Amino acid sequence: MQNVTLWGETLRLLVELSATAAFALSGILEGARKRLDAVGVVVVGFLAAFGGGTLRDLLLDQRPFFWVQHVGLLWGVLALCVLAMLFLRTRHFEVTERAIQWPDALGLGLFTASGVHQALLLDLPGLVAVLMGLVTGVAGGVMRDVVCNDIPSAFRGHRPYTVCAFAGGWAYVGLWSAQAPGWLALVACVSITAGLRGLALWRDWQLPQWRL
Amino acid sequence: MQNVTLWGETLRLLVELSATAAFALSGILEGARKRLDAVGVVVVGFLAAFGGGTLRDLLLDQRPFFWVQHVGLLWGVLALCVLAMLFLRTRHFEVTERAIQWPDALGLGLFTASGVHQALLLDLPGLVAVLMGLVTGVAGGVMRDVVCNDIPSAFRGHRPYTVCAFAGGWAYVGLWSAQAPGWLALVACVSITAGLRGLALWRDWQLPQWRL
Amino acid sequence: MQNVTLWGETLRLLVELSATAAFALSGILEGARKRLDAVGVVVVGFLAAFGGGTLRDLLLDQRPFFWVQHVGLLWGVLALCVLAMLFLRTRHFEVTERAIQWPDALGLGLFTASGVHQALLLDLPGLVAVLMGLVTGVAGGVMRDVVCNDIPSAFRGHRPYTVCAFAGGWAYVGLWSAQAPGWLALVACVSITAGLRGLALWRDWQLPQWRL
Repeated sequence: MQNVTLWGETLRLLVELSATAAFALSGILEGARKRLDAVGVVVVGFLAAFGGGTLRDLLLDQRPFFWVQHVGLLWGVLALCVLAMLFLRTRHFEVTERAIQWPDALGLGLFTASGVHQALLLDLPGLVAVLMGLVTGVAGGVMRDVVCNDIPSAFRGHRPYTVCAFAGGWAYVGLWSAQAPGWLALVACVSITAGLRGLALWRDWQLPQWRL
Repeated sequence: MQNVTLWGETLRLLVELSATAAFALSGILEGARKRLDAVGVVVVGFLAAFGGGTLRDLLLDQRPFFWVQHVGLLWGVLALCVLAMLFLRTRHFEVTERAIQWPDALGLGLFTASGVHQALLLDLPGLVAVLMGLVTGVAGGVMRDVVCNDIPSAFRGHRPYTVCAFAGGWAYVGLWSAQAPGWLALVACVSITAGLRGLALWRDWQLPQWRL
Repeated sequence: MQNVTLWGETLRLLVELSATAAFALSGILEGARKRLDAVGVVVVGFLAAFGGGTLRDLLLDQRPFFWVQHVGLLWGVLALCVLAMLFLRTRHFEVTERAIQWPDALGLGLFTASGVHQALLLDLPGLVAVLMGLVTGVAGGVMRDVVCNDIPSAFRGHRPYTVCAFAGGWAYVGLWSAQAPGWLALVACVSITAGLRGLALWRDWQLPQWRL
């Protein structure tokens, strides 16, 4: 049994690290495309990777921030930025973007679950908990795009992203209220979010457009 | 006497709800005009309605947020967004914009008063209290425009908006210092803010431009 | 000895005031260039002057904000905005920009030192402390540019700015860990930051560009 828990923890850590890397890479690519200088690329990478979780902790008044507890994460993303600047060329951009779609979808689910979880621990209502999950999963990308002077792709892409996290978040809230074990809620939230996101990409689902 | 208080409370609640709806609608219209997808329209509506009050609570370190205490507000704005997406067409935009001018002006006054009030309760100096009032009333619209990749209309419109709230906020601070009853300060702040705003719209007042 | 301390304090205060004025002026110029109205110019001036320190205090959960403790700063920047609007014309813009380069560089160093110092007092790790220093020194300018709908010049200028503060911040952390006296760490941080910045401007150093 202990072995299973250990495996679970290791798996979770792996997903978390690869998701953080995927989020950071999305920022690095965006910064490079906008022809920012080295500092700008690093900052946008950091915003994409840590912005959402930081805003959640700020709203929930949680200290220390997760990146203060795990300073290694900061060093890791810094190293990733340097490596990307040394080795990533324009011709790699498209490949990288496709390669990070899966870790990104898994990360969206995991980050959403972590936001919902923290809010539920503070006895906040279901809708607020889901909102905190969305903030954790999506706000980093929004900051990335705002700083790069774009309308956030999450709001304009017409491809379900936030909506998948919304569904996953409610799954977490529902299972938590039903007092299901924590790992079950986590797995449900991640698999629903990432599953829906995968389906949306595969079947090219579109959000309903505003009928003007 | 109790009846009067009750009437006052009901009136205040009505103004608050219609103001929140007006702020949300301004976000929804802006999002629709920028051709955001359904998620983007909802997010921009939420930012416009709740952004200012949330930033004020964040700066004043007040928890829980007002929308955590009144989760019904969140559900209401969500419903409003869905209804707007179902029923609002381009030809309604101009009508809607004119229709929300008055609730918007009243809301500006009321939100300003609520920000000033909270800051004064924390014994902050007058100028800081007025600033918190402005944050409550104006910051939501600023976030709406920043996310939509516009220079905030409050900073570029050359039509008094923030200035009206500035005057109303000082009225609140003055009456509070003179230990006037709370409802008087509230009524003064709202009527000065909304009155000046109404005059500015009616007489087409312009802010002094930068003489380059 | 007391005399020396007093002189030190006075000098520090002078640098701080002129740096705040320089930061505010950078915002005022940017706002004027973007043809904002009077309100917009004032807001952008305030954001540039107080945005970084406020975000630092928010992240470190420090209250009251420094501008609540020293309300005179708010009044001073407000007066500066009004004076600038009365007397500054387009032909002064270039002169002003050159004139504020030095107070800006000194301010960058001083603000960075203050951010690092506060974080170290809270026993945060070195990298986090340097980050807080960067937030204090740079975030105000970022907010100024985001509100004015530009990609922040700190991320796109290809001229070392944040990097100078990064070096100065580490100097502060190093001297603090070595238990050097506080004034030495402060002087080292400010002179390294401002010195590097001055060298970068003088020798026209460029940050490495992304090789696409």
